[in-house]
Amino acid sequence: MAAVSGDLYVEVQMFYARQIAMLDDGDFEGFAGTFLPDGVFRPAGGRAEVCGREIIAKASEAASDRFDGAQPRHWFDMLRVTPEANGGIRTNYYAAISITASDGSTRWEPTCVVEDELVRVDGELASRSRTVVRDDLPSR
Amino acid sequence: MAAVSGDLYVEVQMFYARQIAMLDDGDFEGFAGTFLPDGVFRPAGGRAEVCGREIIAKASEAASDRFDGAQPRHWFDMLRVTPEANGGIRTNYYAAISITASDGSTRWEPTCVVEDELVRVDGELASRSRTVVRDDLPSR
Amino acid sequence: MAAVSGDLYVEVQMFYARQIAMLDDGDFEGFAGTFLPDGVFRPAGGRAEVCGREIIAKASEAASDRFDGAQPRHWFDMLRVTPEANGGIRTNYYAAISITASDGSTRWEPTCVVEDELVRVDGELASRSRTVVRDDLPSR
Repeated sequence: MAAVSGDLYVEVQMFYARQIAMLDDGDFEGFAGTFLPDGVFRPAGGRAEVCGREIIAKASEAASDRFDGAQPRHWFDMLRVTPEANGGIRTNYYAAISITASDGSTRWEPTCVVEDELVRVDGELASRSRTVVRDDLPSR
Repeated sequence: MAAVSGDLYVEVQMFYARQIAMLDDGDFEGFAGTFLPDGVFRPAGGRAEVCGREIIAKASEAASDRFDGAQPRHWFDMLRVTPEANGGIRTNYYAAISITASDGSTRWEPTCVVEDELVRVDGELASRSRTVVRDDLPSR
Repeated sequence: MAAVSGDLYVEVQMFYARQIAMLDDGDFEGFAGTFLPDGVFRPAGGRAEVCGREIIAKASEAASDRFDGAQPRHWFDMLRVTPEANGGIRTNYYAAISITASDGSTRWEPTCVVEDELVRVDGELASRSRTVVRDDLPSR
């Protein structure tokens, strides 16, 4: 397995921390703005892929209806970062989503495995694509 | 977003790993010793802030009563590390607490978002302050 | 606490990401192949230690029966990495296992604390030993 510098790995982790805090805190335009203008989001369960910031923002907001006002938090782990010859970066990681309600209860959604393509634009990372595979669905 | 070196980010992660293992394993004086002598802990839910190592140790021990002998574990994610001009370091991260009882059951407390101020003393990191915001409480 | 470079810490994290994805996805020979030929796995709860790749593979497969077809995912946190004078690396971390069933439910096993000895073979990390202590069992 090719070595990855600590600097790059940490840059990817901080990119996700910033990106996901916007998603979890309901800043759907901010979240979508971390994708390329023609970025692609491939959700789990065979649902149609979503392309472009405006549509990613709308789809993310629509998907958040399931939280019903409770607070979601995404948890990533087992991150692998693979630089590619063309300058892009592939990543692969586990994702879990906790949902904390105002009564203090916390429940967990099905775990997922996610694959991303990242690119560097003007020195900053951006998401070219995200592909989510849920551990409870037969498509995995 | 300013770049952070892998070395610094990892130093912060290892600081937390050491600090939190003391807290979870009931070494409240050791935990409090990772704060500055006049360090500040601002708990969630509008409770009064706690200042100074001795009082942080006592408050942490009192707070652990809720585990009723079960084993807590803190889980951090989505860590952002921001060095400041004055040499301090601000961090921001998600936190979850699992509680495993002797019957093998594991339950989760409400998730939190935490903001810390860290400083370097004699080459080692220390906590100047911690501010915890719980996801189930209206103060967020 | 001795400083650890971001490069080494990240190399360890990526080693675990690759190792654990094989375990969670049922590639037990691949998982066992990340141990030395005479590697040792000391499971929780006072069960006998397991030595050698073939036996680690078989024991891991047998242990996975408890998932009953559901998808396990290991989550590591609070990782500490300590290089040793002999070139080996000791690590210490929290581990949790989520189990997602085909009905979409996710449950959590008791949390654990794990200690590993890693070594470098032909430039790549390998596990010399793993010792698991479960938070619900009296042996801790």
